Amino acid sequence: AKSAKPNIIFMLMDDMGWGDLGINGEPSMETTNLDQMAKEGMLFTDFYSANPLCSPSRAAMLTGRLPIRNGFYTSNYHGHNGYTPQNIVGGIPDNELLISELLQNAGYTNKLIGKWHLGHQQQYLPLKHGFHEWFGSPNCHFGPYDDKTTPNIPVYNNTEMAGRWYYEEFTIEEHKYFSNMTQYYIEEALEFIERMSSEEKPFFLYWAPDATHSPVYSSAMFKGASRRGPYGDAVMELDYGVGKIINLLKSLGLDQNTLVFFSSDNGAAMIGSAFENGSNGPFLCGKQTTFEGGIREPTIAWGPGFVKPGQVSQQVGSLMDWFTTALHLANIPVPDDRFIDGMNLLPVLSGDNSFDRPIFHYRGNTLFAVRYGMHKAHYWTWTNSWEEYNKGITFCRGEYIANVTTHEQVNRTLDPVVFQLGRDPGEKYSMKSSLSEYKEVVANMKTIVNKHLETLKPGTPQFDWCDDAVMNWAPNGCEKLNKCLPKPKSNLQKCVWPH
Amino acid sequence: AKSAKPNIIFMLMDDMGWGDLGINGEPSMETTNLDQMAKEGMLFTDFYSANPLCSPSRAAMLTGRLPIRNGFYTSNYHGHNGYTPQNIVGGIPDNELLISELLQNAGYTNKLIGKWHLGHQQQYLPLKHGFHEWFGSPNCHFGPYDDKTTPNIPVYNNTEMAGRWYYEEFTIEEHKYFSNMTQYYIEEALEFIERMSSEEKPFFLYWAPDATHSPVYSSAMFKGASRRGPYGDAVMELDYGVGKIINLLKSLGLDQNTLVFFSSDNGAAMIGSAFENGSNGPFLCGKQTTFEGGIREPTIAWGPGFVKPGQVSQQVGSLMDWFTTALHLANIPVPDDRFIDGMNLLPVLSGDNSFDRPIFHYRGNTLFAVRYGMHKAHYWTWTNSWEEYNKGITFCRGEYIANVTTHEQVNRTLDPVVFQLGRDPGEKYSMKSSLSEYKEVVANMKTIVNKHLETLKPGTPQFDWCDDAVMNWAPNGCEKLNKCLPKPKSNLQKCVWPH
Ligand SMILES: [Ca+2]
Ligand SMILES: [Ca+2]
Repeated sequence: AKSAKPNIIFMLMDDMGWGDLGINGEPSMETTNLDQMAKEGMLFTDFYSANPLCSPSRAAMLTGRLPIRNGFYTSNYHGHNGYTPQNIVGGIPDNELLISELLQNAGYTNKLIGKWHLGHQQQYLPLKHGFHEWFGSPNCHFGPYDDKTTPNIPVYNNTEMAGRWYYEEFTIEEHKYFSNMTQYYIEEALEFIERMSSEEKPFFLYWAPDATHSPVYSSAMFKGASRRGPYGDAVMELDYGVGKIINLLKSLGLDQNTLVFFSSDNGAAMIGSAFENGSNGPFLCGKQTTFEGGIREPTIAWGPGFVKPGQVSQQVGSLMDWFTTALHLANIPVPDDRFIDGMNLLPVLSGDNSFDRPIFHYRGNTLFAVRYGMHKAHYWTWTNSWEEYNKGITFCRGEYIANVTTHEQVNRTLDPVVFQLGRDPGEKYSMKSSLSEYKEVVANMKTIVNKHLETLKPGTPQFDWCDDAVMNWAPNGCEKLNKCLPKPKSNLQKCVWPH
Repeated sequence: AKSAKPNIIFMLMDDMGWGDLGINGEPSMETTNLDQMAKEGMLFTDFYSANPLCSPSRAAMLTGRLPIRNGFYTSNYHGHNGYTPQNIVGGIPDNELLISELLQNAGYTNKLIGKWHLGHQQQYLPLKHGFHEWFGSPNCHFGPYDDKTTPNIPVYNNTEMAGRWYYEEFTIEEHKYFSNMTQYYIEEALEFIERMSSEEKPFFLYWAPDATHSPVYSSAMFKGASRRGPYGDAVMELDYGVGKIINLLKSLGLDQNTLVFFSSDNGAAMIGSAFENGSNGPFLCGKQTTFEGGIREPTIAWGPGFVKPGQVSQQVGSLMDWFTTALHLANIPVPDDRFIDGMNLLPVLSGDNSFDRPIFHYRGNTLFAVRYGMHKAHYWTWTNSWEEYNKGITFCRGEYIANVTTHEQVNRTLDPVVFQLGRDPGEKYSMKSSLSEYKEVVANMKTIVNKHLETLKPGTPQFDWCDDAVMNWAPNGCEKLNKCLPKPKSNLQKCVWPH
């Protein structure tokens, strides 16, 4: 049954690319439920994550603030990505306000299902930050894990671990792309929504499955279902889950009172094999980069009570807007004691409104690029280092644009690389600096950047310090399961971030 | 009103890419009429042109036969593209049977609107080959034209020229991307359909506008309409025309008795500027190449009497199938005195049927690649020569796949480059030859190729000889308009084909 306040669902995929939806031109067109969701709701063509990597993207989404503000970056290097592997000491700072905390204060019941990635030490976990319930893992399910140099990551059920992931209770059979985890995540979502409905409680569900992050996986039901291979199988299972959730909302009569957002935390990864990688459609490069392939996300808003159906919106949007939009929907004041980057999308969702706004694309501690209107200006170009590239690591597989996909960090602040993304979504034709269009864009962008830098108070960097002693050796509840592992001696070191 | 026999419409765009339709993921999503046509009909995701260049692609479509069979290739070089510029001596051989000729014999009234490109000498023109009516040009509207070394190309109205194109009666303002030509092509189509309907005659309309071929153009009505620039404006005007034609069919009650195909003659060109180029979506390279970007086409079948609505078909198809399908639709026997490559798509259009078949991708006189099932094997790799590439000519802008996008013609017959196009539509991950999947595919493809080569009787090459004297100096009807130009002395030479 319907609660007095509108319900909010964030569906956030992991490493899924813009081009992975049928509605966005994936040639196999296997995402029938997502395509239907887009037809019933609003498809966003120009929607961005705040960062091309999981942890900072998610922290930004939940705080409505850029990683440079909320601390999800490193100052160890110039313009290098960081995230929250198991040896990270940092996590989401206590003085950040998460959407879950603000909704909790307003009487919402909040559940996270899936990956957290805002820090795995006890003080950083979801139930310390506004979530009432959690089923999922604090880290990436990306090995190697051996329980000796690196513990298998825990799966939590609320405050205690329910087992270990990857090789143990929650299995991924390596190189077989098999796991039941997405099914558990779907079941958890359906159970939570049904329970909230019967209790007539307003809820916030943050559904964050990770089956499309390497190593990709799907359950037996979807094995071989896709002509795209294991990655496609994973997408189809997630698509199935989306369909189940939407249909449940309809059958419970919650559809008029629930706003659902769907997106991905960053672009598809280009490193790795064809079996594990998604598609960034026509966009340049992928995860790790500030080219469109790293940050342009497949995004849908759904909810007939709040979203005009059957629309395609070219509003330039950001995952950080979900924070601000959710606050407006729940009639909660937006915090005014700090800079909030997210904008309120409710007027966009309800009709033909749109607004101009810049999007700032950082890599680590450095502003790499800005999008405003149809233009994008790159102030720094970099894919990865020659050293990594020569080892076979690539974030731009098969793509090479001279002076753009560089393997050195090139400072273009004085002569930015400019693309017009309407006629050149693939960032292939950098604009000639002799054009008057170029000069106007660069001048306008300069004003925008200067204004941005004036507001900028960088947060304390959370990705500077690493220590093997902080890994998930002995998560809460490990005693009951006899899953505690011996903790090594503390060895605090500056984290190494090669990218 | 409805005729006894079903009407047939081929809508063939020029150099439009797979990724140019909103429904195929063009991020600006500006093709609302085509997207609607796809929703009401069948969208083909895996549909190919028979060649990555205009003339041979069109000749193959109209004859149902590969260019190597119908003569639309050159033997002057190994594996070089050719087409029908103004100095070409050849054209469609008299012994080829065109769909227009077969439909004419069966009582259809046939009209070509737009570009012909099957030879411009009098014996090759449309009204000599089964068309009753023609409004359009025999050649590309691609200069330079000066009426001295090269005549401006004529626009024909049936058997006589109505003016000259490009700088004269039918203007394209160069670098301004302006022309009314698409509006004329739309009006011609609407007039023809209305007339056929009122006369209750079965008709075949071949609608072949060329606004998306460089130099792209649109009329004042669409100037600046697209956020994609002049190319997008051209697409929007064509999309508008498609909508007008479909709506007219509906309002005349012809929709149940007409089959409409929409596609493009080859992939989007990668050479040139962002203002003039289309999108090949996630596919590799473009026009001129046998990579997916050169040959995978945006394709829709529409017609509620023959096409199951709201379908996406992954049937591997070819423009040559339009020939065979149209014959079946009109209940005309398929010629059995020659090899026909086109297959009958009617069972696919009517429901969930599909069939296996190989697609042979030639470049000039050489079999470069074969697609069968989900796999594609490249026997030769080549984009363009180093000489051309070093001049700045590129058919793979921004793309580089080692040992694949080569600038030498590399013979891979003994160790083909294999891609699985489901998990790797972008041809970025060539399959390891140690995989059993590779070995199976290569063995299977070998059988398919050998069988193909057994059936192959190459036609007389039409692109071997060029002569400036055969240009459009004095087309039929030039006297009436005072538009005859002095013809130079004959100078028969082997044509030069750098690509
Ligand atoms: Ca991610
Ligand atoms: Ca063409």
